[in-house]
Amino acid sequence: MLVRNIYDTPMKPVDMPGVKGAMMAVMVGRGDGAPNFALRHFTVAPGGNTPRHSHDYEHEVFVVEGTGTVMLDGEERPIKAGDVIYVPADKEHQFRCTGRGVGIRFLCLVPVSRNCGEVTPGSG
Amino acid sequence: MLVRNIYDTPMKPVDMPGVKGAMMAVMVGRGDGAPNFALRHFTVAPGGNTPRHSHDYEHEVFVVEGTGTVMLDGEERPIKAGDVIYVPADKEHQFRCTGRGVGIRFLCLVPVSRNCGEVTPGSG
Repeated sequence: MLVRNIYDTPMKPVDMPGVKGAMMAVMVGRGDGAPNFALRHFTVAPGGNTPRHSHDYEHEVFVVEGTGTVMLDGEERPIKAGDVIYVPADKEHQFRCTGRGVGIRFLCLVPVSRNCGEVTPGSG
Repeated sequence: MLVRNIYDTPMKPVDMPGVKGAMMAVMVGRGDGAPNFALRHFTVAPGGNTPRHSHDYEHEVFVVEGTGTVMLDGEERPIKAGDVIYVPADKEHQFRCTGRGVGIRFLCLVPVSRNCGEVTPGSG
């Protein structure tokens, strides 16, 4: 049975242009046989951010703890624990940690493939 | 921009044979244009449970708070906040709330369709 805790699963630095202070772990993904979507765990340190970018697949995000902002399609909004954010495909977006002392922790789900079977980056 | 908080979004009782004390809300789903998967929020009250059943699509689950158990394919395991559980398609499963005083709160994601386009129940 696959049961993994986000606090026990090692994370790796996110290595992408424009990223600052972000870590990630694929909690369930292609490597586990997940046929449709992958569940990833991210943290962003205070003052850090994910890349400002867009891509041809969607995100569904859940904020576990901390505070920050999401920039989506030119609009910026504060986000906090319990928030669910939908980032449609092809919309420019960026997550920032604006809290002090602690970072922001969130889940970010992606489809495991798009464009008729092409593998989604970071879907494990 | 779609930002919804799980604590502010009204939930409905889960009306299925074998369920006890479970509530749910679709946080992002087909109705929002999500093309691949739906993010649903569930609570199960102390002593309650989801149905013991199986179906032809997978779950990816994240425990937000509380304690309980998951029964999957004949094995039962305790679950707690931060746990991610993968329930493959066609495997019998059931979630129970074993905590006292508070319920268990979790996210449960499903594909929005399966079997070449058939709509997944509860995918919003």
